[in-house]
Amino acid sequence: MKTFNPIKNELLSRTKLQTAIVILVILTSIFNINIMAQEKSQMIRLAKIKVDPMQLDKYNIALKEQMTIAVQLEPGVLTYYAVADKSDPTNITILEIYADTAAYKFHIETSHFKKYKETVENMVKSLELIDVKLIGSAKKEYY
Amino acid sequence: MKTFNPIKNELLSRTKLQTAIVILVILTSIFNINIMAQEKSQMIRLAKIKVDPMQLDKYNIALKEQMTIAVQLEPGVLTYYAVADKSDPTNITILEIYADTAAYKFHIETSHFKKYKETVENMVKSLELIDVKLIGSAKKEYY
Repeated sequence: MKTFNPIKNELLSRTKLQTAIVILVILTSIFNINIMAQEKSQMIRLAKIKVDPMQLDKYNIALKEQMTIAVQLEPGVLTYYAVADKSDPTNITILEIYADTAAYKFHIETSHFKKYKETVENMVKSLELIDVKLIGSAKKEYY
Repeated sequence: MKTFNPIKNELLSRTKLQTAIVILVILTSIFNINIMAQEKSQMIRLAKIKVDPMQLDKYNIALKEQMTIAVQLEPGVLTYYAVADKSDPTNITILEIYADTAAYKFHIETSHFKKYKETVENMVKSLELIDVKLIGSAKKEYY
């Protein structure tokens, strides 16, 4: 007959709980290290573009198409934010995040990127590319 | 006795399917209009900051703390990306997205923002704030 021993039972529960906590801490650490390693390898860039005012609408359409397709199709294209100065919408800044330099090199050889470059060739008056590193980011989860 | 009428049954199924599609289209449209309206009201800004090289590490810590707390505590603070030029990490650019101007006005009155401003007062050599509008963004869902 199995007897109920409350002390033994409590000890067993505690051990299980402690084991669960230890496993959780280890998993969380691995997960965080993984994210940090991923962030470290990322290639991040600011592109500063001056667009011909007469062709601004067409340029913006081509840019949005390129961004959307690249993020949809390429695993290594992570994030794009394209913004225009309110005081002069022909001044455009793009924040670009790629998984790593290999992902970026792959990206510039894709047909959608080449199509974009050809389309905007005569629309872009100047282009400055600034390699940057992430200090930090914070955003709403659902956003 | 209930009789099975295959034609009537198929018509009923079709009607149900059509109704479901119409409802789905309406809901999707409402959802998209809602997102577009939300994006339209957003206040987006680029902050360009030049930091004292001797205090760069301390500045970055204060900046990260401010960003994290603001996104966690304030419903209207949506996104921050802070990056530093690789060629000169004292040149910092921050992309800031707030739900609207009211959310921004609320933000600058919070204790965590005031604490950040006081902390970095003597670390920041210059600050340029550029109001921008979103041309478009694209990002991986899980990212």
